[in-house]
Amino acid sequence: MRDYVEIGVGREARRTYHLEDIAIVPSRRTRSSQDVDTTWHIDAYTFDIPVMSHPTDALASPEFVIEMGQRGGLGVINAEGLWGRQQDLDAAIARVVDTVNADELLDFSGTKAIELLQELHSAPVDHDLLAERIGQVRDSGATVAVRVSPQRAREFAPKMIKAGAELLIIQGTMISAEHVATGGEPLNLKEFIGSLEVPVIAGGVTDYVTALHLMRTGAAGVIVGGGTNTNEFALGIEVPMATAIADVAAARREYLDETGGRYVHIIADGELETSGDVAKAIACGADAVMLGTPLAPAAEAAAGGAYWPAVAAHPRFPRGLVEAAPFGQNQSEQAPSLEKILQGPSTEPFGNQNIVGGLRRAMAKCGYTDLKAFQKVGLSVNR
Amino acid sequence: MRDYVEIGVGREARRTYHLEDIAIVPSRRTRSSQDVDTTWHIDAYTFDIPVMSHPTDALASPEFVIEMGQRGGLGVINAEGLWGRQQDLDAAIARVVDTVNADELLDFSGTKAIELLQELHSAPVDHDLLAERIGQVRDSGATVAVRVSPQRAREFAPKMIKAGAELLIIQGTMISAEHVATGGEPLNLKEFIGSLEVPVIAGGVTDYVTALHLMRTGAAGVIVGGGTNTNEFALGIEVPMATAIADVAAARREYLDETGGRYVHIIADGELETSGDVAKAIACGADAVMLGTPLAPAAEAAAGGAYWPAVAAHPRFPRGLVEAAPFGQNQSEQAPSLEKILQGPSTEPFGNQNIVGGLRRAMAKCGYTDLKAFQKVGLSVNR
Amino acid sequence: MRDYVEIGVGREARRTYHLEDIAIVPSRRTRSSQDVDTTWHIDAYTFDIPVMSHPTDALASPEFVIEMGQRGGLGVINAEGLWGRQQDLDAAIARVVDTVNADELLDFSGTKAIELLQELHSAPVDHDLLAERIGQVRDSGATVAVRVSPQRAREFAPKMIKAGAELLIIQGTMISAEHVATGGEPLNLKEFIGSLEVPVIAGGVTDYVTALHLMRTGAAGVIVGGGTNTNEFALGIEVPMATAIADVAAARREYLDETGGRYVHIIADGELETSGDVAKAIACGADAVMLGTPLAPAAEAAAGGAYWPAVAAHPRFPRGLVEAAPFGQNQSEQAPSLEKILQGPSTEPFGNQNIVGGLRRAMAKCGYTDLKAFQKVGLSVNR
Amino acid sequence: MRDYVEIGVGREARRTYHLEDIAIVPSRRTRSSQDVDTTWHIDAYTFDIPVMSHPTDALASPEFVIEMGQRGGLGVINAEGLWGRQQDLDAAIARVVDTVNADELLDFSGTKAIELLQELHSAPVDHDLLAERIGQVRDSGATVAVRVSPQRAREFAPKMIKAGAELLIIQGTMISAEHVATGGEPLNLKEFIGSLEVPVIAGGVTDYVTALHLMRTGAAGVIVGGGTNTNEFALGIEVPMATAIADVAAARREYLDETGGRYVHIIADGELETSGDVAKAIACGADAVMLGTPLAPAAEAAAGGAYWPAVAAHPRFPRGLVEAAPFGQNQSEQAPSLEKILQGPSTEPFGNQNIVGGLRRAMAKCGYTDLKAFQKVGLSVNR
Repeated sequence: MRDYVEIGVGREARRTYHLEDIAIVPSRRTRSSQDVDTTWHIDAYTFDIPVMSHPTDALASPEFVIEMGQRGGLGVINAEGLWGRQQDLDAAIARVVDTVNADELLDFSGTKAIELLQELHSAPVDHDLLAERIGQVRDSGATVAVRVSPQRAREFAPKMIKAGAELLIIQGTMISAEHVATGGEPLNLKEFIGSLEVPVIAGGVTDYVTALHLMRTGAAGVIVGGGTNTNEFALGIEVPMATAIADVAAARREYLDETGGRYVHIIADGELETSGDVAKAIACGADAVMLGTPLAPAAEAAAGGAYWPAVAAHPRFPRGLVEAAPFGQNQSEQAPSLEKILQGPSTEPFGNQNIVGGLRRAMAKCGYTDLKAFQKVGLSVNR
Repeated sequence: MRDYVEIGVGREARRTYHLEDIAIVPSRRTRSSQDVDTTWHIDAYTFDIPVMSHPTDALASPEFVIEMGQRGGLGVINAEGLWGRQQDLDAAIARVVDTVNADELLDFSGTKAIELLQELHSAPVDHDLLAERIGQVRDSGATVAVRVSPQRAREFAPKMIKAGAELLIIQGTMISAEHVATGGEPLNLKEFIGSLEVPVIAGGVTDYVTALHLMRTGAAGVIVGGGTNTNEFALGIEVPMATAIADVAAARREYLDETGGRYVHIIADGELETSGDVAKAIACGADAVMLGTPLAPAAEAAAGGAYWPAVAAHPRFPRGLVEAAPFGQNQSEQAPSLEKILQGPSTEPFGNQNIVGGLRRAMAKCGYTDLKAFQKVGLSVNR
Repeated sequence: MRDYVEIGVGREARRTYHLEDIAIVPSRRTRSSQDVDTTWHIDAYTFDIPVMSHPTDALASPEFVIEMGQRGGLGVINAEGLWGRQQDLDAAIARVVDTVNADELLDFSGTKAIELLQELHSAPVDHDLLAERIGQVRDSGATVAVRVSPQRAREFAPKMIKAGAELLIIQGTMISAEHVATGGEPLNLKEFIGSLEVPVIAGGVTDYVTALHLMRTGAAGVIVGGGTNTNEFALGIEVPMATAIADVAAARREYLDETGGRYVHIIADGELETSGDVAKAIACGADAVMLGTPLAPAAEAAAGGAYWPAVAAHPRFPRGLVEAAPFGQNQSEQAPSLEKILQGPSTEPFGNQNIVGGLRRAMAKCGYTDLKAFQKVGLSVNR
Repeated sequence: MRDYVEIGVGREARRTYHLEDIAIVPSRRTRSSQDVDTTWHIDAYTFDIPVMSHPTDALASPEFVIEMGQRGGLGVINAEGLWGRQQDLDAAIARVVDTVNADELLDFSGTKAIELLQELHSAPVDHDLLAERIGQVRDSGATVAVRVSPQRAREFAPKMIKAGAELLIIQGTMISAEHVATGGEPLNLKEFIGSLEVPVIAGGVTDYVTALHLMRTGAAGVIVGGGTNTNEFALGIEVPMATAIADVAAARREYLDETGGRYVHIIADGELETSGDVAKAIACGADAVMLGTPLAPAAEAAAGGAYWPAVAAHPRFPRGLVEAAPFGQNQSEQAPSLEKILQGPSTEPFGNQNIVGGLRRAMAKCGYTDLKAFQKVGLSVNR
C-alpha cells in the first residue's frame, strides 16, 4: 500500500522521497571495488560506465561529446540548442558565460544570461551546420546520441538520423505517450518510435502510469526526472527522485511481465550532484544516470564551469538556473579533466570527482559487483 | 479521519501542511498550455485570470488597479489605507519607501517604516478624497473592489458602494461570522451582507467550522489565510495553507450540499510567492488567489518594489514585514511590467514572472484544461 | 497511548514537540481583545499579567524588578548572583556587557564573558549587602520573589525570607523532589518546603513523573524547562517545551485528583522569544511564563540588552550563551521601555513588543477570554 | 518490528535516526555528578574515562597520545599514517596545517591540503622509525593502541605488536568479518584475530548483521561508524549513529546470549561533537566513544586545531574534510589543554570543554551513576 496522508479534510497526498532523504545500507560481506563491473548495455550499445550527459550546450561541445565516449559514457547533443543556430558556437557560449559570470554578482537567478540564451535560441536552425557538427562527433567513432523535443521530434528526427544519430533522445521536461493539443496533431509516440530505425530513449517521466505508457511506445529507455530543479517553484511540480525512480522501476517490472521479457532501461536525470547521489539513483532502480552540473567543471565542458539545463532557454517560461562557474575556476584553479571527474583520482572529499569510483566503492562496501543486483541493496530513510 | 498526534500526555494536535510541503503530481496525458482556460466567474463578474491583488497601498495606486483590470484580474483598494487619509498619496508612499529602503540596512524588521505607517494611518479618512480616487478607477471601466475591515464595515461599506464599489471585500487577519465584544454591538455578518446590494468576499478564515459559518452569511467568496506571515511569531497562530484551503474546500462541499447548490468561491491569500505556489493553491481547492509580494516588483505598483500587508500599519500591534525593494530595482534594473509578471514572457526561472503562464503549464503538464477540474489533481507530500 | 518510535533494534524513543513545532488553531467566534482577562492568581498573590522574569542579573537590577511589579508582573531576584557578591553592582554588570559586546566580534560563544562571570561569581556573598538590595525592592511595594538553588536552599532561604522574600523560587537547571548525594544530606524538598512560611515555586522539571513528585512536595508552582538552551549540546538533554508543558499539565490533573483539589501552577521557562511563543505555552497548559531574552532589550534591564541565564556563571560547566546587545542598541536606537515590551504599543511585527497584547489578541482571535480556558484551544503540528 | 516506509511502489526503506534527532530524557531522582563513575574496562585494561582518540595524525603526536593516557583515556596511533613515513613529522604536519589554513579562504573543501596529504602518504613506511615513535609512547607507561587497516593488517600487525602495541585497532571506513576480493586472499578476521596475542577492536560497522559477524571473530570491541562524515556525499552511505549504535547493541545482546556471556564493547565513532553527543552515544548503547574533532583544539594535538580523519589521505577517493584551525586559534586565543577539553573547568556553554564533566552531569541529572546502567535511560525523538 502507498503511504498517504490527509492534508486537509477529504484531501489526500502521497508521501514521497528525495534522494537526499534516503541512504544506502551496507549489510553484506564487503568486496573489492576492483571487482565491480559498471558496464551498461542498452539495445546494441555497450558503455563502460552508466553515464550520459544532460543535453545542454553548457556541456556539449563536439570535444566534450567525443571525450565522453572515450571515457566509456555517452555524450548527448541537443539538436535544438545552439549547434545549429550559431555559426560561431564558441563565441556564443562565451557570451553567455561572460554574462552569467558578471551578472551573478548582482542577481543570483541570472536573468540577463537567460535573456541572452533566449535571444541566441531565437535564431533559426541551420540543418547543414548542425549536421556538420554532428558529423564531427560521428567521425571520432563515439556513439552519437541526439536529443530532440517532443514538439519538434517529427521535424528533427529524420534529419538527425541522417546526420548520424545512433540513439535518439526525445526529451521534454515532462512528456506523455500521447500529447493532446486542440487543432494540432498529437504526437503519438508509439507510432513515431515504431517508424524510426534507431533506438529511442524518451522522457522525462515522473510517475508509474506515465512511465508504463511510455514503455509501451517501444522506447528502449525512459528518462526519470523533470530536467530542471526549478519546476518546483515555477510549476508546483516536484520530482522527488527516490520515489520517482522506484515507481518507474515498478512500471518496468510490470511491463517486463506484460511483454514476457522486454526490459526498458531507466535513466535518472535529477538530484544528481555527487557520486553518492549516483549510487543512490542506481540503488532505487535506475540503470544509468544523466549528469548535468557534476560534469560542468570539466575542462572539456563547453561553458568552462558555467551551467544551464536546456529548458533555461525557453522563450516564454524559462526554468533552470544559469549558474556561473564556481569561484576560482578559470582563474587560479586549473579545471579538472572529465576523466578526473568521472574516474579520478580525486582530490576532494565530497564525491565531486571520481564519480564512477565512488559508485564502485559504494557497491563494493555493500557487497555487490554489478549494477543490476545493486538495485536491490537495502535503503534507509533519514527524515 | 484527521491525522492527530499526541504532543504530550492527553494533549493532541492535528498535523497540518504548508504549500511548500506539498507538490502537484502529473499522471495523465499532457496537453498544450494553449488549451488551458483560466477564466474565473464569481457572481456576475468574469475574470480572465483568477488573480486578485492584496488590498495594500504598497500595490494599489489607481494606475495599478486599472492595469490589474486590463490584464484580466481584479485589483483591490483598501478603504482604510492611505487613499482617503493622505492628500498627496504619492508623496506619502514615497516617504515609506525611502524609510524602509534606508532602514533595511540596519534593521531588517523595518520598525522605522512601521512607525511611519502608523503615523500616516492616524490621519482621519477624507471620504470625498477616497471617493474621488475610487471614481478614477470606476471611470476606467475596471471592476471596482474595495476592502473594509469588519470593525468599520458598517461605517465604510455604504460610502464605498456609493463611490462605485462593485465588490465589497470584508477582510481582517482573522474573522468569524459573528464577532463578540462586550458593550458594543457585534457585527452579524449574515444580516449585514444581506443588507448590501453588492456581492461580498469575506475573510480571512483558516478552518472548516469558521469557513462554513462564513459561507452561511451569504458571502460570494471566502478568503483563506491570515493576511500576513508574522502571525506565527506574534500570535502563535499559523495558517498552513495547503491544509487550510483543503479544509475550506470541504466546507464548500458541505455548504453546497446543505443549500442544494450554492457555490461559494475560495480565494487563497497566503504562502503565495511563485507561479508554482499559485498552481498548488488551486490544486488544493482554491478558485482564485490574492497576490501580494509577487506583484510588488511591477512597474505599476505604488511602492516601486517595496511591500507591506495592510496589517503592518496596526496602531498597537502591527504584523507583517515592511520589505524594501529588491536590491537593484529602481537603480540599474528596469522594473518588469505587471503584464510581464502576470503573463510573461518571463526571463527568470523561479516562477516570479509569467505567473499565469506557469499556472497554465502546470495544468497542461497534468492534463487539465480548466481550474475547477484541476482542484482534483494528484498531490504529494515531501516531508 | 504515547507515540513511540523504534530508533534501533529493541530501543524506543518517544516523539516530542517544541513550541516551534506547534501552532494555535482558531475555530470559534472571534472576540474583542479588550475583553480578555490575563490576571494570574497564585497562592495569595494576584498579578495582572502572567509573566515572571528569569532570575538573572542581566535583567534584575532593583529598578527592573520594581518596574516588573509596576507593570503587573513579577520580577525575580537571583540570591546567588551578583547582588550580594559585588559592592558596585552596576560596574560589575558593565564589565560583563563590555566584554561580551567586544568579544562577540571574534567569538560567538562569548567565552571571555563567561570567564568574567565565573570570576565575579567566585566572590563570597555578603548577606547584608544582598538584604539591603532586596529591601530596596520590598520598600517599593513590589512583590519580592527570590531564587535560590536547590544546593544552597537550606543556607539561603531563611536569610532571604528575613530580608523580605514573599515568594521563594527554588530553581536549578533540573531538579527532583529528592536529590541524592553520597556522603551529604539530600535536600528533601517536601520537608524543606513544609518548614517555610512563604510559598515556593520550584523547578525546572521536564517530565510527568518528576513534576508529580515535585507537586507532592507542597510547591505552589512548578517551573517547566531547563533554564538554558544549550543543555542540548552540553548534556544531550533537550526540553521540547510543547511536550514538557503538556506532560506537566497532565501531572497537575493527576495531582488535582489525588488531592481532591490542590492546584499547582505551571510556569513555562524555555523557548519563549515572542508573544506567539507565550500564547503557545499557555495553550499547552502553562499558567504563566518566565521570560528571559524577550525582556533583555528593555531600557530598565540591568545589562542594557545583553543577556545570560543564571547557569552561564557555573564554575566548572557553564551553560547558556552570553549574548551581546542587539546591534544598534545603546547606539543609534533608543531602547524600548519594559512597558512597551510588555504592553505596547508595538512598532515591530514579530511579537517582540506588546507581548501581553499579542497574548490577548491570540486569545481573542480564538474566542477565549481567560487564561485557564485558553489551555484547551486547538493545536496543530506543522512538521 | 522495524519501522519501514515505502519510498516508491514496492520499494521499502527503514527509518533511521541521527544523534541530533534524539535527546536524553531525565525522569528519576537527580544525583550528584561527583557520585558518577565513568570507568571503562575492556579486556585487561581499565580507563578512567570512556574516551579513545580517532587514529589521525591531526591529533596523535607522541605527546598527545601520552597525555591521553595521563588523562585516563586511550590515544590511538595510526600505523599507516605519517609516523612511519615522514622523518620530520612535525614539519610534515605543519605543511598540511599551513596549506589548509591558507586554502580555506578560497575553497572550503581543502583540496590542496588533500593533495598534500596524498603526497605525504605516498612515501613508504619506515618500520624502524614507526617502532621508535611507538616506543616513545610505550616508555611513558601509557597504554599503546595502534590502528591498522584491514587491507594491510596481516603485514603491519605483527610489527606493531613487536613495537609495543597492547591493543590493536583494525579499522577501515566499513569492514566486514570477511572481505572478498577476486584473485587475492580475503582477510578472514576470525582466523587473524585468533592468531594475535593482543586484544583487537575492529570496525567500523553500521548494522546489526555485520556487527554480529564481527563479534563472532573474537574482537574485544567493535567500532560503530564510518570514520568520516562525507561518505554520505561520496558513497550515498550514511551512518545515522543513534540507530547504528542501538542496532549494534542489539547484536551485542544476541551475541551475549549466543556465547553465554561474552561481552563485546561498542565504541561509537561518528556524529560526536560535544559532551551532549557523547552522553547520547552512551545512552544509545555505546560503552565508549572515539573522538576526533572535539579533541582537535587541544594544545597537545599535533595539528594545532586543524583536523582530518585518516581516510582524507586516500590516494584515489579521499573522504573527510580537512578543516582549518578555528579562527583565532594559534593567534590571539590560547589553545585549551587536553585536560580542559576532557575534564574542565569549562569556560564555554556548548559542551566543547569538560566533555567528561558534561557526561557526568547528564548521567547525574538522570539519576545514573555508571555507564552501563545509563545505556537504559529514556530517549526522545524530536523530528
